[in-house]
Amino acid sequence: MEGLELRRLERGDFDKGFLQLMQQLTVVGDVSRGMFDAKMQQLEKLGDYHRIVVIEDVKSGRVVATGSIFIEHKFARSCGKVGHLEDVVVDERMRGCHLGQRVIEALTSFAEDAGCYKVILDCKPENAAFYEKCGYSKKEIQMAKYF
Amino acid sequence: MEGLELRRLERGDFDKGFLQLMQQLTVVGDVSRGMFDAKMQQLEKLGDYHRIVVIEDVKSGRVVATGSIFIEHKFARSCGKVGHLEDVVVDERMRGCHLGQRVIEALTSFAEDAGCYKVILDCKPENAAFYEKCGYSKKEIQMAKYF
Repeated sequence: MEGLELRRLERGDFDKGFLQLMQQLTVVGDVSRGMFDAKMQQLEKLGDYHRIVVIEDVKSGRVVATGSIFIEHKFARSCGKVGHLEDVVVDERMRGCHLGQRVIEALTSFAEDAGCYKVILDCKPENAAFYEKCGYSKKEIQMAKYF
Repeated sequence: MEGLELRRLERGDFDKGFLQLMQQLTVVGDVSRGMFDAKMQQLEKLGDYHRIVVIEDVKSGRVVATGSIFIEHKFARSCGKVGHLEDVVVDERMRGCHLGQRVIEALTSFAEDAGCYKVILDCKPENAAFYEKCGYSKKEIQMAKYF
């Protein structure tokens, strides 16, 4: 991790390529600085219920990996909590350096420290082996409805 | 739905069999009235980000179906939102009456009205056909890590 810093997402990451990195994962669309700041404000209100981390390449000042987790309150498991891992992506120029694993380990530890009894995520079948290396196991199937 | 009322979970549902219903889905463990009230208070703070609905059989005063949804803030899809559907269960004595479908329709509509671009859920493969009837399609696979 020399020259790389893992930390929470900050407002300044708008200028450090955070959205361009997200575009490698999914459709981001037009997000202005105002929209980015408004979303950050919403997320800040949720405090530790929603955490987005990034890895910054300090030399280039670019965000090269990210992932997020949010914590769901349940009545199950003696009023337990579950971490939901989302939006993990590593810059295509930095793949093979275990940055994805670092992001997942950080977010998984965060959920464990927050008292979650499990963390879950959804992924494409071809990425299952990667998550298995990070200690995850196949469980159920995901269903979706788009509007 | 004669004699049945679909509404948000209330504190009084502690005495109407809400936790006993949840036990038909998963491990609930010991949840005292104090723990239930404290969890309700946490959920109330989240406002419309987390909604639990129940169907009450008005005559018997028992909760016979429930489901929950929480809304995730994303940067993807022009700072979009995603609904996560969880903990859907119908009392075994009331199955076959389409109560599960009513719960899912209510929560899915809530997410759509809240501006979500999709709703996702995880289920056992044998329940996929049921969710397909509710307009959902198979998508990815779920992975989990238990602590």
